Amino acid sequence: MTVRYGMVGGGPGAFIGAVHRMAAALDGEYSLVAGAFSSDPGKSEQSGKELGLAPERVYASYTNMAQAEGALPVGQRIQAVAIVTPNHLHFAVARAFLEQGIHVICDKPLTTTLEDAEALCRLVAERDLLFAVTHNYTGYPLVKEARERVRAGSLGTVRKVVVEYVQGWLSTLLEAQGQKQAEWRSDPERGGASAVLGDIGSHAHNLVRYVTGLEVQRLFADLGTVVEGRELDDDATVLLELDGGVRGLLIASQIATGERNHLRLRIYGSEGALDWSQEDPNRLRLVSPDGSEQILHRGAGQLSQAATAHTRLPSGHPEGFIEAFANLYRNVARAINTGATSGDFPTIADGTRGVHFIHAAVASHKAGAWVDASYAPPAS
Amino acid sequence: MTVRYGMVGGGPGAFIGAVHRMAAALDGEYSLVAGAFSSDPGKSEQSGKELGLAPERVYASYTNMAQAEGALPVGQRIQAVAIVTPNHLHFAVARAFLEQGIHVICDKPLTTTLEDAEALCRLVAERDLLFAVTHNYTGYPLVKEARERVRAGSLGTVRKVVVEYVQGWLSTLLEAQGQKQAEWRSDPERGGASAVLGDIGSHAHNLVRYVTGLEVQRLFADLGTVVEGRELDDDATVLLELDGGVRGLLIASQIATGERNHLRLRIYGSEGALDWSQEDPNRLRLVSPDGSEQILHRGAGQLSQAATAHTRLPSGHPEGFIEAFANLYRNVARAINTGATSGDFPTIADGTRGVHFIHAAVASHKAGAWVDASYAPPAS
Amino acid sequence: MTVRYGMVGGGPGAFIGAVHRMAAALDGEYSLVAGAFSSDPGKSEQSGKELGLAPERVYASYTNMAQAEGALPVGQRIQAVAIVTPNHLHFAVARAFLEQGIHVICDKPLTTTLEDAEALCRLVAERDLLFAVTHNYTGYPLVKEARERVRAGSLGTVRKVVVEYVQGWLSTLLEAQGQKQAEWRSDPERGGASAVLGDIGSHAHNLVRYVTGLEVQRLFADLGTVVEGRELDDDATVLLELDGGVRGLLIASQIATGERNHLRLRIYGSEGALDWSQEDPNRLRLVSPDGSEQILHRGAGQLSQAATAHTRLPSGHPEGFIEAFANLYRNVARAINTGATSGDFPTIADGTRGVHFIHAAVASHKAGAWVDASYAPPAS
Amino acid sequence: MTVRYGMVGGGPGAFIGAVHRMAAALDGEYSLVAGAFSSDPGKSEQSGKELGLAPERVYASYTNMAQAEGALPVGQRIQAVAIVTPNHLHFAVARAFLEQGIHVICDKPLTTTLEDAEALCRLVAERDLLFAVTHNYTGYPLVKEARERVRAGSLGTVRKVVVEYVQGWLSTLLEAQGQKQAEWRSDPERGGASAVLGDIGSHAHNLVRYVTGLEVQRLFADLGTVVEGRELDDDATVLLELDGGVRGLLIASQIATGERNHLRLRIYGSEGALDWSQEDPNRLRLVSPDGSEQILHRGAGQLSQAATAHTRLPSGHPEGFIEAFANLYRNVARAINTGATSGDFPTIADGTRGVHFIHAAVASHKAGAWVDASYAPPAS
Repeated sequence: MTVRYGMVGGGPGAFIGAVHRMAAALDGEYSLVAGAFSSDPGKSEQSGKELGLAPERVYASYTNMAQAEGALPVGQRIQAVAIVTPNHLHFAVARAFLEQGIHVICDKPLTTTLEDAEALCRLVAERDLLFAVTHNYTGYPLVKEARERVRAGSLGTVRKVVVEYVQGWLSTLLEAQGQKQAEWRSDPERGGASAVLGDIGSHAHNLVRYVTGLEVQRLFADLGTVVEGRELDDDATVLLELDGGVRGLLIASQIATGERNHLRLRIYGSEGALDWSQEDPNRLRLVSPDGSEQILHRGAGQLSQAATAHTRLPSGHPEGFIEAFANLYRNVARAINTGATSGDFPTIADGTRGVHFIHAAVASHKAGAWVDASYAPPAS
Repeated sequence: MTVRYGMVGGGPGAFIGAVHRMAAALDGEYSLVAGAFSSDPGKSEQSGKELGLAPERVYASYTNMAQAEGALPVGQRIQAVAIVTPNHLHFAVARAFLEQGIHVICDKPLTTTLEDAEALCRLVAERDLLFAVTHNYTGYPLVKEARERVRAGSLGTVRKVVVEYVQGWLSTLLEAQGQKQAEWRSDPERGGASAVLGDIGSHAHNLVRYVTGLEVQRLFADLGTVVEGRELDDDATVLLELDGGVRGLLIASQIATGERNHLRLRIYGSEGALDWSQEDPNRLRLVSPDGSEQILHRGAGQLSQAATAHTRLPSGHPEGFIEAFANLYRNVARAINTGATSGDFPTIADGTRGVHFIHAAVASHKAGAWVDASYAPPAS
Repeated sequence: MTVRYGMVGGGPGAFIGAVHRMAAALDGEYSLVAGAFSSDPGKSEQSGKELGLAPERVYASYTNMAQAEGALPVGQRIQAVAIVTPNHLHFAVARAFLEQGIHVICDKPLTTTLEDAEALCRLVAERDLLFAVTHNYTGYPLVKEARERVRAGSLGTVRKVVVEYVQGWLSTLLEAQGQKQAEWRSDPERGGASAVLGDIGSHAHNLVRYVTGLEVQRLFADLGTVVEGRELDDDATVLLELDGGVRGLLIASQIATGERNHLRLRIYGSEGALDWSQEDPNRLRLVSPDGSEQILHRGAGQLSQAATAHTRLPSGHPEGFIEAFANLYRNVARAINTGATSGDFPTIADGTRGVHFIHAAVASHKAGAWVDASYAPPAS
Repeated sequence: MTVRYGMVGGGPGAFIGAVHRMAAALDGEYSLVAGAFSSDPGKSEQSGKELGLAPERVYASYTNMAQAEGALPVGQRIQAVAIVTPNHLHFAVARAFLEQGIHVICDKPLTTTLEDAEALCRLVAERDLLFAVTHNYTGYPLVKEARERVRAGSLGTVRKVVVEYVQGWLSTLLEAQGQKQAEWRSDPERGGASAVLGDIGSHAHNLVRYVTGLEVQRLFADLGTVVEGRELDDDATVLLELDGGVRGLLIASQIATGERNHLRLRIYGSEGALDWSQEDPNRLRLVSPDGSEQILHRGAGQLSQAATAHTRLPSGHPEGFIEAFANLYRNVARAINTGATSGDFPTIADGTRGVHFIHAAVASHKAGAWVDASYAPPAS
């Protein structure tokens, strides 16, 4: 049974909406049946038409959509909504659909304030719904392999974690040139307290947690605005103290000129290390203490069940970003179809921890000092 | 409008059938509505069910399917059929659907004999139908970039072409262990005159032609069977003389132990060179005569319209095998929807040239000598 | 004319002594004629013999050596001394030879205290001698190319610098197993205030300064001791504020399990970026704002005079660590032979800045706060 | 004891002479004491002066040098001569010194005719002298590691060998522009029967033999001249049948535009494969049948005694071309010093096999057919 889903946001020119739709389509486990694709009703209508939706299920606003879908019979209305709006709208949209008993798949960062995130946590728990946050990089098979290996102790004790997520696309004041993606991201009202941490740092933070299982306990952050005229930050370094005193370092930048989408995770343990890069996702580098390396390839060799279950093609047939994103979608579909209350996808708790991390980093930066970053989201 | 299509072959355990379905699904331009997924009717039925097809359009054989679909009203019957059976069946299946006026998307090599290929050529021309052969590697954006650059003369005069396609999966006598993929490929009745050239050499041959626009005029082939007990070849080297005396070399092996799916094309021209590898498809290496290199990344920098039109994601967000395959499917869908008689996808003429190439190579190997390999398919 | 030189330290089993000797020998511009190779006179004698020195110029101690060599006629005595002892001896040895009017080539870090470093600064200035500190990584041709390009503005304004120098060889408590190299490095008396910054962080610091011309003005350091039982630090992260507010990050670790000698420098400017790795020293990656890359190869293409003058072989014939080290030696020889007062090699001022940097980092770590790190060495 | 050696050839502007001198100097096991550096006596004199030789041992011709050195007392005259002239002179120079009882280190290819090579073989055997041919690529530690692993059977049975040696420096008619290196290489009188095989193909041939221990039994060669106006060939493909029917392929080109010095060896065995590239010589890639890879680094991990004995630096401190070349020199020095009759360096027999290989390839090319290539040099 395919899962009926709707989308809020993702109208013309919105890169991420198309990604969500391809991810949902890839395995044939979803049908897109409704949407409010833009705050401009005309644009929403146009998108709905292009996507072949029934006109009566293309809505002028997310509030209309939530009410109308909520009013449809259970076998007809959407089972899940994908939220791909700018950050500041995540909260209100998610709440509207949760209140109608509809599962949510929401882009990151979860919300722009911690209060909102915590409110969603409680609502999800009350309503007993699924809430996935699209920290999509956890969907790569070799990230799952990394997680399995770290957790099985094959690196020994984790000692040091270095995660970097660097891009160059904001090396100029793009937001002053009418680029929509840049515009809302660098606006404190719409992007949140930290642009660079909200947009990409939160992915890096979640990736560390996913692979190592370690939480940030203390942190020291240095946030900077490199491009003149920019309102929010565009470059960040965050020193982390993880559970058990493990040393961590998170680097996030959007002014790393020429960098495309370089997310890289290195984990050094007492008995080995691993190294994975998102731009080369089909390889996982394992380093042994003697300095020799092993390169694992997706689909080849002795990989964990977690990795192989999220692999579609034989080795040497590259999988990429969409396939990883689709793994997240597929896992949500399977939870919906089986009535499971969880699955291998980032949850509202993960998203809330991400929001807390951003705010702790901003506080540390303001204080110029290490701050406590321990946290547990409500109702989790 | 999505294109209604059916599938022949691609039942349980058939890797390539699932690839075709994902490629068709990715962009939402196809609907799978019919199929004869296996020569075993029970298995076909099961596959159809899993894929959510209407039971009446899941057929026990491709002949039933061709007749029944051909008898449906135009607005209801399949517009195209995807043929993903073993090689020896391509001909009969394709003919059956062409005779019903249905477009064909067929796996490679086109047929096991040149006569069959030429018969299909004539039939396609008579019926004025589209016939795509899934030389999917031409679907990668940076392969298209390479083609554009070579054809625009940015390498100067092409002087030497080296293409290699090496795999290791047949390093053992897999066909004796009941592995179905290995079984039919290494059976002369079902795989054709040369296993290694049919399976992968034909891709390499087509890639050279696609990028350079040059045809093979003479060749010298050395075919070998390395694994004891194997009936067909598993390793081949073919020296090529291309149009204008350009020197070429084609290496194909399935006993290259440990190699995954290493298809690499290097083209040396009088004013530069390029180098592309399928396992790293988001990068294209350009080499200047002074020995410095430029790395082009899919989605970044000054790329041709041909490349960007086949790109879904920004640079740094890896695309892979399915996306390239989907480009081929999408181009066929657009030709169907617009009534175009051609598009950017490999045609029956390309497929027929591939079959001719295989037979010329076999003839050269038998003679131990260079042979004439010039050829033009009928009706093209 | 070859330069006559002597060596202090570098006896049996000392890796770095042999490196200095090979670096000096490579171009035939030095003759090793004297030495005090070990604090154990027997070992010194043995080394001298193996190296083919005249027995009367193999000394039982550096003090003997300085006095005896100083007493020889000018045309006979050593013109320079190479100091390759543990860190805590650099000061006294250097002073002894400077006082005899002998030029010094000294390993890094210069000294274990800032007072000592400054005293040497003054002495060098008084005596008008050459003093090179073997920050050998500046000797690579493509590091020089990087420097030229940055300084010529081809990256635009430098905005962010990331330097990392990570190794794994101290992932275990090697110093407790009688490994001499580990022993003195991790002993505060002999290694200095910070082991990891003294041993490798000082190289990273100097490399940033050499390439960018920027000095550290403020810093925040976090130093850690990861391996239990270790007296000094083995892992460091230092946030840098460079001249003009340029953001910098320096990562140094000796517990990065499995890493060999990974020194990497990335510089992001307003109009481009560059990336160089010591383990792959014959390539320099330049990134343009549009995300395409250029790879420059040592010896190929349009390189600066600074790079080509330090290149011995055509491109594609790899040069390595010894060749880079030899560039430093050769530049010192040429300065000695021409009577120049400077050359393209790190000086006493560079070494003193390195010592200051280490102490500033230790102070910051203790304070848990950013500290002022501006500094100018005396007499420079 | 350092070995006294002289040099024939290697005057101003001759790249390879300087390489030999650096290789000899690196470990301090040689002293250059004599030379006839150019056929122009003035240039020879100048070179000798620059190199600090005693004027009476700088000769106007190699014949003078052979006679004069041969007449010196044993403890004074050169023990070995390094021959770095164009190919056509190797024979006469080598003979002159062998006749004086002086060991020879000779560049490749050994000679331009097989008769000459065989005559040298006999002379070397008669005089009981050492004769090394500088197939320097065998000097890399990881080539030695590859050899050890192949010979110990860790790849199982060798099945297929692919060696390629491609360069781009002759992509233009450089010899018409007065470039000396290009001039003599492309002149049949001075370069030999095949330029591309003599210059680089012979290295590739020797590398295959060194690592696998397999000899060429049959071959099919296709030689081409791509650059108009060139007298000799500049591009070659040679199919090999090695001992036991092992399939081999040798690619050599000097018109591979932009390629620097790309010598790469891949060996596929029944139980694994290996892959080594000269431009990245500190890494050896081992591939297991399951498609995972291991990267061995020079100096790290479990390497053979053969590899570690030819390693000077710890892992991560790159060694390069000169160090590999120096390994060959060092092994010759040790044989001379110990009176050994052989060592780990390519011999007159290896060189003679190389010459035979070139001539067999030329014969095959002329015949357009496979030819017998089995051969054993005389007196070996």
